[in-house]
Amino acid sequence: MTQLITPRTTKYVYDFAEGDAQLADLLGGKGANLAEMTRIGLPVPPGFVITTTACRAYLETGAAPSALEAEIRSHLERLEHQAGRRLGDPVDPLLVSVRSGARFSMPGMMETVLDIGLNDVSVHGLAVASGDELFAWDSYRRLIQMFGKTVFELPGSLFDDVLTKAQHRAQVSSVTDLSVEQLRQVTERFKDIILDQTWHEFPQDPSEQLLSAIRAVFGSWNSDRAIAYRRQERIPGHLGTAVTVMAMVYGNLGQNSGTGVAFTRDPASGVPGVYGDYLSDAQGEDVVAGERNTRPLADLESLDPRSFHELLGYLKILEQHYRDLCDTEFTIERGHLWMLQTRVGKRTAAAAFVIAAQLVDEGVIDLDEALARVSGAQLSRLMFPAFAPGAGDRVLVSGIPASPGAAVGAIALDQATARASAGPVVLVRRETTPDDLPGLIAAEGVLTGHGGKTSHAAVVARGMGKTCVCGAEALVIDEAARTVEVGGVLLREGDVISVDGDSGQVYAGAVRVCPSPLVEYFETGLMPPGNKTVAAVARLLEHADRRRRLQVQANADTPPDAERARRLGATGIGLCRTEHMFLGERRILVERLVLATTPEQVRHSLDALLPLQREDFRDILERMDGLPVTIRLIDPPLHEFLPRLEDLTEKVARAQGSPESLAHDRELLAAVRRIHEENPMLGLRGVRLGLVVPGLITMQARAVAEAAAQLVRRGLDPRPEIMVPLVATVHELEAAAVILREALAQVPDAPRIPVGTMIEVPRAALTAGDIAAQADFFSFGTNDLTQMGWGFSRDDVESAFFPQYLAQGILTVSPFESIDESGIGRLVELAVAEGRATRSDLRIGVCGEHGGDPASIGFFHRAHLDYVSCSPYRVPVARLEAGCAAVTATGSDSR
Amino acid sequence: MTQLITPRTTKYVYDFAEGDAQLADLLGGKGANLAEMTRIGLPVPPGFVITTTACRAYLETGAAPSALEAEIRSHLERLEHQAGRRLGDPVDPLLVSVRSGARFSMPGMMETVLDIGLNDVSVHGLAVASGDELFAWDSYRRLIQMFGKTVFELPGSLFDDVLTKAQHRAQVSSVTDLSVEQLRQVTERFKDIILDQTWHEFPQDPSEQLLSAIRAVFGSWNSDRAIAYRRQERIPGHLGTAVTVMAMVYGNLGQNSGTGVAFTRDPASGVPGVYGDYLSDAQGEDVVAGERNTRPLADLESLDPRSFHELLGYLKILEQHYRDLCDTEFTIERGHLWMLQTRVGKRTAAAAFVIAAQLVDEGVIDLDEALARVSGAQLSRLMFPAFAPGAGDRVLVSGIPASPGAAVGAIALDQATARASAGPVVLVRRETTPDDLPGLIAAEGVLTGHGGKTSHAAVVARGMGKTCVCGAEALVIDEAARTVEVGGVLLREGDVISVDGDSGQVYAGAVRVCPSPLVEYFETGLMPPGNKTVAAVARLLEHADRRRRLQVQANADTPPDAERARRLGATGIGLCRTEHMFLGERRILVERLVLATTPEQVRHSLDALLPLQREDFRDILERMDGLPVTIRLIDPPLHEFLPRLEDLTEKVARAQGSPESLAHDRELLAAVRRIHEENPMLGLRGVRLGLVVPGLITMQARAVAEAAAQLVRRGLDPRPEIMVPLVATVHELEAAAVILREALAQVPDAPRIPVGTMIEVPRAALTAGDIAAQADFFSFGTNDLTQMGWGFSRDDVESAFFPQYLAQGILTVSPFESIDESGIGRLVELAVAEGRATRSDLRIGVCGEHGGDPASIGFFHRAHLDYVSCSPYRVPVARLEAGCAAVTATGSDSR
Repeated sequence: MTQLITPRTTKYVYDFAEGDAQLADLLGGKGANLAEMTRIGLPVPPGFVITTTACRAYLETGAAPSALEAEIRSHLERLEHQAGRRLGDPVDPLLVSVRSGARFSMPGMMETVLDIGLNDVSVHGLAVASGDELFAWDSYRRLIQMFGKTVFELPGSLFDDVLTKAQHRAQVSSVTDLSVEQLRQVTERFKDIILDQTWHEFPQDPSEQLLSAIRAVFGSWNSDRAIAYRRQERIPGHLGTAVTVMAMVYGNLGQNSGTGVAFTRDPASGVPGVYGDYLSDAQGEDVVAGERNTRPLADLESLDPRSFHELLGYLKILEQHYRDLCDTEFTIERGHLWMLQTRVGKRTAAAAFVIAAQLVDEGVIDLDEALARVSGAQLSRLMFPAFAPGAGDRVLVSGIPASPGAAVGAIALDQATARASAGPVVLVRRETTPDDLPGLIAAEGVLTGHGGKTSHAAVVARGMGKTCVCGAEALVIDEAARTVEVGGVLLREGDVISVDGDSGQVYAGAVRVCPSPLVEYFETGLMPPGNKTVAAVARLLEHADRRRRLQVQANADTPPDAERARRLGATGIGLCRTEHMFLGERRILVERLVLATTPEQVRHSLDALLPLQREDFRDILERMDGLPVTIRLIDPPLHEFLPRLEDLTEKVARAQGSPESLAHDRELLAAVRRIHEENPMLGLRGVRLGLVVPGLITMQARAVAEAAAQLVRRGLDPRPEIMVPLVATVHELEAAAVILREALAQVPDAPRIPVGTMIEVPRAALTAGDIAAQADFFSFGTNDLTQMGWGFSRDDVESAFFPQYLAQGILTVSPFESIDESGIGRLVELAVAEGRATRSDLRIGVCGEHGGDPASIGFFHRAHLDYVSCSPYRVPVARLEAGCAAVTATGSDSR
Repeated sequence: MTQLITPRTTKYVYDFAEGDAQLADLLGGKGANLAEMTRIGLPVPPGFVITTTACRAYLETGAAPSALEAEIRSHLERLEHQAGRRLGDPVDPLLVSVRSGARFSMPGMMETVLDIGLNDVSVHGLAVASGDELFAWDSYRRLIQMFGKTVFELPGSLFDDVLTKAQHRAQVSSVTDLSVEQLRQVTERFKDIILDQTWHEFPQDPSEQLLSAIRAVFGSWNSDRAIAYRRQERIPGHLGTAVTVMAMVYGNLGQNSGTGVAFTRDPASGVPGVYGDYLSDAQGEDVVAGERNTRPLADLESLDPRSFHELLGYLKILEQHYRDLCDTEFTIERGHLWMLQTRVGKRTAAAAFVIAAQLVDEGVIDLDEALARVSGAQLSRLMFPAFAPGAGDRVLVSGIPASPGAAVGAIALDQATARASAGPVVLVRRETTPDDLPGLIAAEGVLTGHGGKTSHAAVVARGMGKTCVCGAEALVIDEAARTVEVGGVLLREGDVISVDGDSGQVYAGAVRVCPSPLVEYFETGLMPPGNKTVAAVARLLEHADRRRRLQVQANADTPPDAERARRLGATGIGLCRTEHMFLGERRILVERLVLATTPEQVRHSLDALLPLQREDFRDILERMDGLPVTIRLIDPPLHEFLPRLEDLTEKVARAQGSPESLAHDRELLAAVRRIHEENPMLGLRGVRLGLVVPGLITMQARAVAEAAAQLVRRGLDPRPEIMVPLVATVHELEAAAVILREALAQVPDAPRIPVGTMIEVPRAALTAGDIAAQADFFSFGTNDLTQMGWGFSRDDVESAFFPQYLAQGILTVSPFESIDESGIGRLVELAVAEGRATRSDLRIGVCGEHGGDPASIGFFHRAHLDYVSCSPYRVPVARLEAGCAAVTATGSDSR
């Protein structure tokens, strides 16, 4: 926790010239980068930053630290000196802006007050000094309006109403069309509102304006929306915000003024060049509002060549300095260029790889650093099919890209329509609820008008691997008319749309979908000529393979999956589930096993399964010759292979079917009732099944050993391992190992087959020291560990209350998506430490879905695992992340 | 682990005179007590003990330590000197016994060889010296028989067949009726068997006999049955057994000889006096075999007054010395008394209390030690109803007492009969399976012919609080004839029997059941005159209350339960479940809540519940005036209040009922399907429900606060606390606390109401440091913690695979019965440490069923909890155990 009383000697205010980019904790991101630009000589308007420490002291005590006001005054004097103008000067007044700026970006969450320094006198001075009376009065009314809302916390509608009425009286459609006199009247009315509502005059003293604005920005840290945002983004509540005070500069003083944003490279493709937007005679706010059309930054060359080339020089300096793509905001005030903001810029996934590789080529960074600059999450976005380039000209609406991919289909406005449709559909809803689940399953993708990345639609779509764009607020859905309207375009249910889950853009009609060139490269090994992205990925992936300590294996249950995994770079199978081998036509054999009432019947049904399993294992072992294949004993409860209890109950109650089939159904129903469990996830499954159904473990062990023996006799090098699931106590593993060893010993020519265990029950992690004595290896089953550790049934909770939890900020990410480091991760760390204390050569991996989650792999690296195992298509992602983790102290910060 | 090579200097053999009772680890229980008796001057036949260290060395290397044989020889010489006879002496041979004796008693699990020292020559010497030729030859054939089975590991049937044929030829019915010549022939045949089967002669060298027997006893430590027994009893496998070698003495040398067992007090009632059994002209084995009727020990006074009084003197010495009830085995050989064994004796629960109190009165021990000598498990046995004294004369059969109580009912041979019966029934089965569950539920108790304390019947009965006697092997059940036969008595299904779950005895007919006088005392506070047991319990309980650090609260949901809890000594309610208040007539309100489709409907159904809940809380708070009442927010999933999915499915499929009710059922079915979960235990329940159903928490909080406010206005001192269930992350607790605080603040006159949380999800324990920041108290829900920590659904596993796990020794006790210290206990310890690190004044308790389990309370004491909460009738048990825990280092060793 922070200190309640900060010692007197604390420095609360930093001139831009006193700080640098390292001080982001103290000065916030914005303030620290302004200081850095000042430090390296770029033209930044003079200013200073009030530290987060001051903010914290204010928030804890309810008052600014006593030393703060004096410090602000002295820094303000320096600012005035640098600007050559004084705050409140009646002739040529200095105006300043007061902006929040925390360590972590919280866009739009906190307050800003511009134009501080204007009052009834200095407004005239500004009019004269700027030669623009309208500008001066508009600035003044803006100050009072912002001040009223921010400092006095008055509702914005009070001021908006006045403006609306003034426009109505003047018969104009925009505030900018009001005359000086009309603006003067609006300003008076604004001052009256403040007096009426607060019994305080709008302060004429510019110092009082400044100090009040600073306090208001401090206070806005704890506004409801800021608190909600932080909870959502898991930003600690005690950090506080810094406050930046900067001399105002104006891009709206005529055609020789303007404002823009500029990038040091193209943030979409990563290619170097001139990228950005520019707007003449405008303020930064106008660019954000988007009411006027911006022009490409290149146009500035003809408008103001001096400023243009000056800017290019600065961009070059910034990129050299930050050694990365930067984005900037700048303003040109009457031909004078001012840099107002910079930061390391956001970029697309493709650009991230290309830029990192280019910076290596340019000698700016080395390969390790390049690797640290990309992430598995970015790589995984490049592995989805995407719309063909050039599709962008028919954008219908943009929303929040919540689950990647490219979905093309007919609009379906409800789940029934989605399910009934013969062709592909996109489910379009205001928002989704658990009732829409069947529609989500039937659809290619989902588009919602409301909700963010953690809305029901987003969470469920990500879980199912479906494309999702959400929060496209411009959509107007008319369920009665079966239409969707957006920006004047009217679509009917059944019309085709295309949804880009990577950009968030939605297109009318069917846009052509191209397979990922990266996946084609992985599948074929052929580098597509001229594709910078694929080349950059391949280069960084190769470096990741050199550097990573984690091995990457794959979860694969079939020979084709095994082949694919090998092509994608897996060096083994970390999880081969045997239960799929009980499905399909073989289901009848499991049915016989469940219906068996004598040991002979049990033996018969197992005997029938043995040759089938042997064949399955042989084929996979052959494909993975020379690499480990970790075969898990049957895991799910037996009822999963039988009809559902409700369905059978209904069928029997309705007496459907022939007398013979009805008799069979009745028999089956009795069996299903007998093995029915209230909570099958916590019931008779995993090793429990093996210890309770006599012969089951022996059958599987024999099938593995006999398959391997066949291959050995053919001169191959099969390396099967057997993994015991759901162990909660070492005594279970002990008992299973006795059966396994006996069965394996009876197969001639079989190689030595290591026996390990999954650590997927919390108690197994808590007693890993004991369990390690009986295990050749551990494999964390983080899915079950999460289910049991959190008490969340994965089958149920994602649709039942996860969306509400995510919306309320109780969860920020599903713990099934990314490992919960402080809870489940702690079990992992504990089991690793205590397992290795018992057996120092214990091999440890993870085969839950987290094994392929980019946001989790850094954790597994830090937890000293030996390998991760994931689905074949996640193998390159895991290889990259494992490399990133190895070259950074803490693993890639893609969380 | 033990050392592989033991240093040469280790002493492997101890004369009885060299050891004492402290050396049980080294000498085993039997050997250490023989040494102790020798040390204090009691007449013990000379002998020595080979240590467990020697056994371990033998087991690890496969050979006895090189120094051992020499040590044995030198101790044997000393023994011969003391006995005045030599092993193998042809004239007057010394015979010795070789017996196993481990640290922990393993009755019948390991080997014994008697009569070592006989051979073809010395058998004649023994005949002359004893004056009993028959005795000498019978001893010799016994030696060869035992030696063949034990040392040569031959099947016993080989020898039994010879004996049977000999009897047949001699036309006698018992071996004891064979003549000397016939025994001599048998002996020759036995020697032939050994030669034929092993190609070795039976060794004539007595030293070789001795060393071989010792090795055989060592080896028997790892016999299959010994391993199985140890796994069952959780005795570590590496301990090894000691071996006692002792000069043989004989109680079967005529009427002036005999053998018996003697107790220093009555082990049934605890009353001092002469207790034991005696058998003239017999060996200890004959007493065990039970073929001849023993006489009360008091009869010895007339038979052999000198030995009798000598024995009484020794008993007095032993009790003074061991400061506790001792049992002994003794033999009188021709008027000479020998003490062959002693140990602190087993006793009934009642005797335990009476003896402890008496020993205090006698000045032998103090109250702390008396408290340490009794246990909550014993106390709980005294709280069941019991059969009236004197019922014992119609004992039908005895089995293993597996679940206490007294059950009287008609015999039911299957579950259908049990369910169909109008009156009380006792289910009688060879053994039970999950299919018998409905019968167990319907029955008063269960009696099985097969299985032990961990059989299905035993486990399930204990879980349901039903009386159970199992393993009554003498029962012959004829399901076709619907009869039960035992020892010549034939009972028909429907005949009444009485089953005593405390003694394991079963009586024909209805035995009168008396309520527990102890419970009557607790309920009324009136001491029954002349009842030594109740007086002793009251005295020790009072001392426990003085000494215990753990507070004892009760789980109580109704005013009568609250009153009872107070009477039984609870100083608060640690768990008041609010869900029972949703049952009965109010179920319809929950149904409305589930069927609600608008916020108004939700509000209406909650509004209807509010006054009912308020009334419930007021009544309980009034009964518990001045004491804390911990009210848990609603916990179970909503579907528990609705009909079962299968039942509704069937009802609707069959279209049963009127059109109106069918329509309602259809609506209900849709709702039940909507909220159906695959694993409700891990689904929408606990705090999740409160955060997802708007208004639910507020309604319950208001009901609590308004109830308390009513009582405050009446001048009372209500102390409600609110407990949030199923918290997995601090953010859940935070969100619930916001709602709670807001609701509580709106109720005038309400006292301050602390808000705490259950720690019942593993992740809550793992992040207790964070959670403590938001909690006034923690209460461990060890039921759920066990369910999730082990991945065991309590509803399912106890019938599905627990019995098999218990039978296989994978589990020794259900972790739902007693806390699993190494797994779940670790979570408890971790949460206590980290919770208190965050908040040093955090109150911590447990309200799972372990809170009243005698075998768990010591752990909670050691884990530094502040209180345990348990069902009202367990309160005295918990008070006692908490006292025991406080006066012993490790808590009562009732495990």
